[in-house]
Amino acid sequence: MTRPLQFKVEKSLFDEDGVGRARAGRLSLAGATGQPQEILTPVFMPVGTVGSVKAVTTAELRRMSAQIILGNTYHLYLRPGHDRVERLGELHRFMNWDRPILTDSGGFQVFSLSALNKIDDDGVTFQSHIDGSSHRFTPELSMSIQKALGSDMVMAFDQCPPYPAKPEEVQMAMQRTLKWAARGLEVPLKAHQARFGIIQGGLYEDLRVQSAREITALPFDAFAIGGLSIGESPELMQKMAYFTAPLLPADKPRYLMGVGRPEDLVEGVRAGIDMFDCVMPTRNARNGQLFTSQGKINIKNSKYADDPGPLDPECLCETCTQYSRAYLRHLFICREVLSARLNTIHNLTYYVRLMTEMRTAILENRFDDWVKSFYTKSRH
Amino acid sequence: MTRPLQFKVEKSLFDEDGVGRARAGRLSLAGATGQPQEILTPVFMPVGTVGSVKAVTTAELRRMSAQIILGNTYHLYLRPGHDRVERLGELHRFMNWDRPILTDSGGFQVFSLSALNKIDDDGVTFQSHIDGSSHRFTPELSMSIQKALGSDMVMAFDQCPPYPAKPEEVQMAMQRTLKWAARGLEVPLKAHQARFGIIQGGLYEDLRVQSAREITALPFDAFAIGGLSIGESPELMQKMAYFTAPLLPADKPRYLMGVGRPEDLVEGVRAGIDMFDCVMPTRNARNGQLFTSQGKINIKNSKYADDPGPLDPECLCETCTQYSRAYLRHLFICREVLSARLNTIHNLTYYVRLMTEMRTAILENRFDDWVKSFYTKSRH
Repeated sequence: MTRPLQFKVEKSLFDEDGVGRARAGRLSLAGATGQPQEILTPVFMPVGTVGSVKAVTTAELRRMSAQIILGNTYHLYLRPGHDRVERLGELHRFMNWDRPILTDSGGFQVFSLSALNKIDDDGVTFQSHIDGSSHRFTPELSMSIQKALGSDMVMAFDQCPPYPAKPEEVQMAMQRTLKWAARGLEVPLKAHQARFGIIQGGLYEDLRVQSAREITALPFDAFAIGGLSIGESPELMQKMAYFTAPLLPADKPRYLMGVGRPEDLVEGVRAGIDMFDCVMPTRNARNGQLFTSQGKINIKNSKYADDPGPLDPECLCETCTQYSRAYLRHLFICREVLSARLNTIHNLTYYVRLMTEMRTAILENRFDDWVKSFYTKSRH
Repeated sequence: MTRPLQFKVEKSLFDEDGVGRARAGRLSLAGATGQPQEILTPVFMPVGTVGSVKAVTTAELRRMSAQIILGNTYHLYLRPGHDRVERLGELHRFMNWDRPILTDSGGFQVFSLSALNKIDDDGVTFQSHIDGSSHRFTPELSMSIQKALGSDMVMAFDQCPPYPAKPEEVQMAMQRTLKWAARGLEVPLKAHQARFGIIQGGLYEDLRVQSAREITALPFDAFAIGGLSIGESPELMQKMAYFTAPLLPADKPRYLMGVGRPEDLVEGVRAGIDMFDCVMPTRNARNGQLFTSQGKINIKNSKYADDPGPLDPECLCETCTQYSRAYLRHLFICREVLSARLNTIHNLTYYVRLMTEMRTAILENRFDDWVKSFYTKSRH
């Protein structure tokens, strides 16, 4: 049987120690409908929490060239329920999205979002953040939920300890994550579904080394770095991603979970990461924080009240080509629904284009120059 | 100088007393950019309160064949300010809408929405519903604001008494409306702007007759029926519209302000009305109330939780062709922004199509049959 995921590194850059770093790749998937899918990396995945990338339609996601989105297992399990989604044609059909979907394991939300969670070696008991009802996730159930959702990429159920945490706690979570990973692998998935293992180990290099060694020994199709971007400084996060990326196999996709700001994506790609996801472009859009080629803009600022110019003169999205900063500010001040839409379209377009630019720069052997130019412009 | 508005009745139906009733027409406008515009009537105008039809883009409005939208003078005066809108290229350019716009006079919101308004013969002093700041509207200022906004159709500043009101109050408001109408006509507008006079008189037939006689003697391009749909029963509203419509010149457009439910539009067209506006399709959409060819649907209802079918099997809008009732219910329950969007696209499409169907039925001499079929299906 062919693997559901194939990955080809088209070009890889090496640092002065000969370690493989920034790379451009092609990720091929079997596809939920039998139609093969291809993703060009590095790639950013917009977050479609509960079966919708907040404020935008899937038609808009296609227009902005989003290649893959993420769905949250915890949220979809609670509402509308994974069995219901499966009955309605799985997540792709339910939300009208024909490109790939990655689902997380639900672990992160169980630990961070739900009330009163209780962890043991077998799984986690938690209360719903919606109605306080009691639920229990195990590695097996997480796989079954993701199987029902029919996503293209399935994440192992891991334990992400909070930050800061003592080395003993981080080590225990790491060991549990390893056992849970092995248990999850025993659960059959649908033929098109690829499996991602997750490296834990917090900010401890020795634990990262151990976790990477043990997890990558298991037959996963790709690997993710978990347990970062959970409260530590961006510098620490970037440093640990740079340390961990080369510990993962060079011939499989590397995914840095929950990251991040544009500069974090740049540093992630520089470290050798292929995939990213974050709520930042969508959430910040709804709060009026917009990313542009000249740096961040808070559209609420009164200096934009009479500004007839486009949000980002270098951007070709619907928002930047059709509306003025003055109009976008007005919509935000009036709390119009259209504000969330237009801002989200722009921020996601910015993120998608950022990744495309990095990919092109890698392929054209000018990534370092591109990075310099990025920092010069965005600190403008 | 040519008039900024021309109206041609293409076909008119007559009741048993020989009174002209339902009609199909073509309304031609000079156009804000010098590009002539044509509107096929009867027509429904989506409400774009503060420079956006809530939750949808102007591209979507064009796709659903909306021919004209309405802007609220009161709201745009307060935020972002009419002078600012004018500096930014007037309302069309500000909100990226190249088809016609009608602006109301601000009168209705001043009386219904603002706190502590005080009316005298010269104008109205009121407090902003946003920050309590004090403002004063006069017929002259209302014209100046609408001139600055650059709308294609400008409404006279009228006094709409509340419901219920004594005949003396209604009569006084009616007389004031007449004087204000004459004063407004003295204020020069832009060359492309057409003027609408407003008939008041509440639910008193003699006052409606008098108001119609006096207002239609003034040189307006079109006439509106005001003071209805403000709390009286739908039956009383429909009866008074039916009474008042033939009092207005047959060769000029007739606009029934703030109406209404689909059946009110049907009865309005039957009475001889050409233009309508109402927040109902947009507001109800955001509350999960959807209009379909089989009657109203409350999408929150649990019976839709597993319903894979389209919202309205007869509708060809983006929502009905791409999403299931189950998905729409899920989005509504989760309060996703996308819920407001998809629901609004459907409801407005339903309203636009309702008007198109009536127009076609009138032109094809089968309006009475269409009305019967409408009531049979929607009471299904």
